[in-house]
Formats: sequence, structure tokens, C-alpha cells
Amino acid sequence: MAKVAVVYHSGYGHTAEQAKAVIRGVESVSGTNANLIPVDQIEQHWVTLEAADAIIFGSPTYMGSASAPFKTFMDASSKVWFGQGWKNKIAAGFTNSASQNGDKLNTLVQLAIFAAQHGMIWVGLDLMPGNNNSKGSVNDLNRLGGFLGALAQSNSDEGPDAGPIASDLKTAEHLGARVAQITNQFLAGRK
Amino acid sequence: MAKVAVVYHSGYGHTAEQAKAVIRGVESVSGTNANLIPVDQIEQHWVTLEAADAIIFGSPTYMGSASAPFKTFMDASSKVWFGQGWKNKIAAGFTNSASQNGDKLNTLVQLAIFAAQHGMIWVGLDLMPGNNNSKGSVNDLNRLGGFLGALAQSNSDEGPDAGPIASDLKTAEHLGARVAQITNQFLAGRK
Amino acid sequence: MAKVAVVYHSGYGHTAEQAKAVIRGVESVSGTNANLIPVDQIEQHWVTLEAADAIIFGSPTYMGSASAPFKTFMDASSKVWFGQGWKNKIAAGFTNSASQNGDKLNTLVQLAIFAAQHGMIWVGLDLMPGNNNSKGSVNDLNRLGGFLGALAQSNSDEGPDAGPIASDLKTAEHLGARVAQITNQFLAGRK
Amino acid sequence: MAKVAVVYHSGYGHTAEQAKAVIRGVESVSGTNANLIPVDQIEQHWVTLEAADAIIFGSPTYMGSASAPFKTFMDASSKVWFGQGWKNKIAAGFTNSASQNGDKLNTLVQLAIFAAQHGMIWVGLDLMPGNNNSKGSVNDLNRLGGFLGALAQSNSDEGPDAGPIASDLKTAEHLGARVAQITNQFLAGRK
Repeated sequence: MAKVAVVYHSGYGHTAEQAKAVIRGVESVSGTNANLIPVDQIEQHWVTLEAADAIIFGSPTYMGSASAPFKTFMDASSKVWFGQGWKNKIAAGFTNSASQNGDKLNTLVQLAIFAAQHGMIWVGLDLMPGNNNSKGSVNDLNRLGGFLGALAQSNSDEGPDAGPIASDLKTAEHLGARVAQITNQFLAGRK
Repeated sequence: MAKVAVVYHSGYGHTAEQAKAVIRGVESVSGTNANLIPVDQIEQHWVTLEAADAIIFGSPTYMGSASAPFKTFMDASSKVWFGQGWKNKIAAGFTNSASQNGDKLNTLVQLAIFAAQHGMIWVGLDLMPGNNNSKGSVNDLNRLGGFLGALAQSNSDEGPDAGPIASDLKTAEHLGARVAQITNQFLAGRK
Repeated sequence: MAKVAVVYHSGYGHTAEQAKAVIRGVESVSGTNANLIPVDQIEQHWVTLEAADAIIFGSPTYMGSASAPFKTFMDASSKVWFGQGWKNKIAAGFTNSASQNGDKLNTLVQLAIFAAQHGMIWVGLDLMPGNNNSKGSVNDLNRLGGFLGALAQSNSDEGPDAGPIASDLKTAEHLGARVAQITNQFLAGRK
Repeated sequence: MAKVAVVYHSGYGHTAEQAKAVIRGVESVSGTNANLIPVDQIEQHWVTLEAADAIIFGSPTYMGSASAPFKTFMDASSKVWFGQGWKNKIAAGFTNSASQNGDKLNTLVQLAIFAAQHGMIWVGLDLMPGNNNSKGSVNDLNRLGGFLGALAQSNSDEGPDAGPIASDLKTAEHLGARVAQITNQFLAGRK
């Protein structure tokens, strides 16, 4: 039974919606155990991460990179890093911000480099970009065109009831399901 | 009189439209000399670049980074690099691709690192992000939310007559004008 | 039997030495088939890549990113990308340049983003950094401290007989072996 | 009189030594006012930054990006960002970590993107890489080969009395002097 943990920070609730969508995707794959961990509860969850087969990292993009509360968690993980405690776990990432592009990619790169330092194996999206042709719309899956992870956009003047929009949440669900499947396959191969 | 050169590659004409918009912006600033250089004519224009006070780099984003024809130019500039011939020139960048996000940021980062190797001074946009709230639209200036440089998006099934759309071209114009102004100020200070 | 291909460009032979070291690592894992593909022979090897379970990408870092010949290959792979022909293959990367740091990381980031566009799964190093304390030396494994992939440094005034040095080649071997093991595990889980 | 502020975080004192070297470089340029601001005293120094003509950002690289205390400052600057209060100020950056490479570049990219969001103008190093040939040594200026900013390496088992070594501190001084000169030129042009 693959254990997948999602660790995330959310300042205003939008990234929390995205995190919940990722968890729905994870849970849609049978034989998977999912854990949703807000980063401010990390102290009691280091053991959950230690036991996990996959960890999905999620943070809003603030001023071009992962938020300070999320970075605090990343820095605290250096204790695990010294013992390479997360080595060979599956990793993935997601981020939300108000702009369409808004330097979101830099947050995903930051998360992928972080995971590589931990010796983790990085799984991105396997979705072609949406909303990139004359028949496309913001309702397309992967409407923002991300690949290293799942991107979402939420209007700066609206709450988490209005954004991320459905297509972004479905993209996040897709990432969760993909990570769960790959983790299951990877675990099966270990036997 | 500030001399500003725009060196660009365009595979299908979209990035060429963006380059022309940048040039319009440069030319809107009085006391500026503008040069538009398609990268396949670079051989006769190394001297133009040598004489320039500012060089603006433009490339489509292909498979997540600057196109191979543009990279060929970048690699060829290593001859200039050995003598630091572009040191203290002003630099800036722009890119176009079909996806809204589509790893465009990685191309701008690549261009900024390249310019830093040359000892150049990097000027980004000074525009707040557009289309990031409930009153926003794709017609906003900086509708994609870029900062290191100017971003444009063009549908994959439409020609350069249809894209980049007007807001992206105005954003490119803004970058050109900004670079011209800053170059003029920087030159005036040299005296 | 896991099939691992290494596609690389080398301008002066240093990255070719690194590529051969990666291949030695791949071949050290029993039940693995290894293929070394210089990027100028790619035309007859698209089928090799199609059949591979893992592709390891290698390029020198020129002017801060992958070399133009390697980027030409990356751009040409867009035909495969449209059909997501490399989806779920394992991916990894390595790079060499003359400087110790020298913006090598940017090449690895470029390769990881590229692999993510292809829907591939990225495997980095699982080595703690070497030569980072008072007892360390340039002979340490992972002496440069890379994580997303294998880094090597070769003096600009010496040929491939002198560099990359042994520790960098062993680091490259380690990456090859790691990719082979993970690919085998992942394949076993597919059954 | 150009006002240059250096804002930095230092966990163990090594980056503080680098910051002091940057300040020495700034002060070596006549007609320059220098301010050294540890990030934990930022609350009383937002006005110093507001008045500055140039801001140089410095942070250790922890787990592949700027430290959490420094990111806390970056996120807090969003109040300034909304009013574009740092627009057209000169910006630069530096970082230290224990590894030779160690993903330091990612921190500089993060800082450059951050500065671009603020509408600032980015100044990197103008030094050719050192220690990249058979006659080179760790005592060379820019011995690590950085360009977007100044890099330093300090052994993980030694205090700030032992590292960063002299060549890294001279590289940091060089960056400080360069920023001061360019800021003076830019200010002179404004008149």
C-alpha cells in the first residue's frame, strides 16, 4: 500500500484548495494511503514523511519563489538530509499565484532542486498544454502549460471559493493520481 | 545618442512580431538609434553589437529554453566573451511560445545568466502583472505576469497575423522604451 | 532487461569522457543494455531512444546553458513530444565546463525541464557533497556538490586526457549505475 | 552621493563575512554611502532601503535556495512591491554555502527574479572565472566561476574565521565596488 504525503503552505486558502485536489487524485488510485499535512503542523508529521513512499510539495509563489513558511520547512528538513532519510522516495510539486505566469516555474524548479538534494525521484505532469490554440480555453486541463509540476492561478481579489478554477483543480488531481500510480509501480518493483 | 540593438530568432514569425514591437518602443524614445537583427544575419552584425550601448535578446521558447538557432548565436558570442567586449552594456530579453506559462521563464533566466557572463547590466520590466484579478483580461498590459523580461503567447494553430495579441505587443513596446530610457540615462552619467 | 541510452554532445572531448563514465556505470548493473549516442549521430538513433527505458542527457555548459548542438537535438525531439513518445521513461543528466561552478546548474535545470515536458521521470544523484569541509579534497566523490545530476569540471587549457578528473568520472559512473538500478526496479513493477 | 544598502542573512557567520567584504568594496568608491543591514533588524531599516539607490541582497544557500529568514524579508517586501517603491534602484546579490557548486546559482537566480519583480536593474560580476585552468588555484579572484553575483564557499566544519577564504572575500569586495560605481554613473545620468 503506497503512502503518499502532501505537505503544503497556503496563505489565503487558494493553495489549500489545490492541495486538497492533489489528495483527491492520490485517493482515486486504489491501494493508496494519503496524508494532507499543512506545513504549520509539520512538527508532529516528520514521522509521517519518514514513512511515506512519496512526498508532494506545494507552496504559493510569493515574490517569485516558495513562501517563507514553506522555506522554513525546507530548511528544517536539513536534519533529514544529513541522513538521506528521504532517498529514493518519489517527489512532485505544485504552486499557485495570482499571475498567469508570474514566475511560478521558479518555485517548481526550487522544489525539484530541493527534492534532488534529498535523493528523491521527481515526477512531473504528463499533460500536453491546454489553452494554447484557437480552440482552447481556460477550462482546458493544464491550461497554463506547466510540466515540472501542477500550476494554478487564482485572482488576487477573490477568495478560495472562486479560485483556483476547476481546470486547475483537475490538473492538480491529475498530478496526485499520477504520483500514486508511479509510486505503486515503483514499490511493486522493489519486491 | 544611445544605440540599441535587438537580436532575435523567430521560427514562424510570432517572435519576429514581438521583436518589431520592441524596436517600436526603442524608437519612441528620442535620441535613440535602433537596430533589428535577425539571428541568421548575425555574421555581418557583430560590429553592430560591438558598437551598441544596449542589446535586447529575443527567442521563442522551444522545449523549455531558447531555440537552437538562438543558442548557436549565444555560443558564437564566446569570442566576444573572452575579451569581455559587451561589458557594461545594457541587456534585456523577451520570449514567445504557445502556452500561457510554458516554461517561458526558463528562457528569460537563460538569457539573464548569459548577459551576466558578458558583464552586462540586466533591465527587466517595470510593469505590475495584468489579468490577475476579477476585473482583468487578456487585454491587460503584462497580462502574463512576467518581470525578468517581456513574455508573449501565440496560439499554436495561428500565424503571426493573429498572435502575439495586442497586449503582448504593447508589453514588448514598453520593454523597448524602458531599455532606451535607461540606456540614455546610463550613457549621460558616463560623461 | 533495462535499456538505457546516453545521448550527449562534446565539443572538445571532455564531456565524451564523462558520457563514457556514465555508460560504465550503467553497464556495471547486471541485466542492463547500454547505448552511447553522440548527438551528431542522432538521426539513426531516434528508434534507439524510442525503445529505451531510460535516457540520460549530457551536454557541456556553454555560455551558461546546454550547447547549441545539444539544443538542436532537444528542439528536434518536439516531434516525439507531440505524441508523448518518451512518457514515463526514466531521465537523468550530466554536464561539464571549465569553471568550478560556472552556471552548470542552469544546464541541469534546462535538461530537467525538458525531460518534464516529455513526461519523463527525473533521477538525480544520491550523493552527499564532497570537498566541502576541512578534510575534503577534489578527489572526493561529488566534489562539486551537484544534486540534479552529475557535474564535472575540466581545465580550459587541457585536453580530455587530463579532465574531467577521476572523482568527476566516478561521480558520473555513480549516476549511470543509479539510473540503471532505478530503471530496473521501475520496469519490474510494471509487470 | 550614492547610497548603497546591503541586506543579508547569515546563519553561522560566513555570509556575514561576505557581506562585510561587499561593504568594504562599496566604501572603496568615493562619494558612496554604505549601509549594512542584518535581515533580523529589517524592521527599522525599511526606510533605509527606501532611500537607497542600490540594494545588494545576500543569503546563504540552504537546501538549494535562499534561507528562510531571508525569504521572510523577501515576502515582507511585497508591501513595497505593490507601490513599486524600489523601481529603478540598482540590485545585486551574493551567496555562500559549503559545497563548491551546491546549487548556489539557484539562489542568485531567485534573487535576480525577485529584483526584477521590484523593477530593479540587476548588476552581476564582470570577472572572468578563476581556477579553471592548469595554472589556476583556489586563490584566484572569482575562483568558483559565478556571474549573476558573487559566490563564496566555506567549509561546513569551520567557522567564519576560516571561511570564506580570501579570494572569495575579494570577489565580494569587487562586486561591492562595481555596484557603487555603476550606481554613481546611473545617478549622474539622472541629473
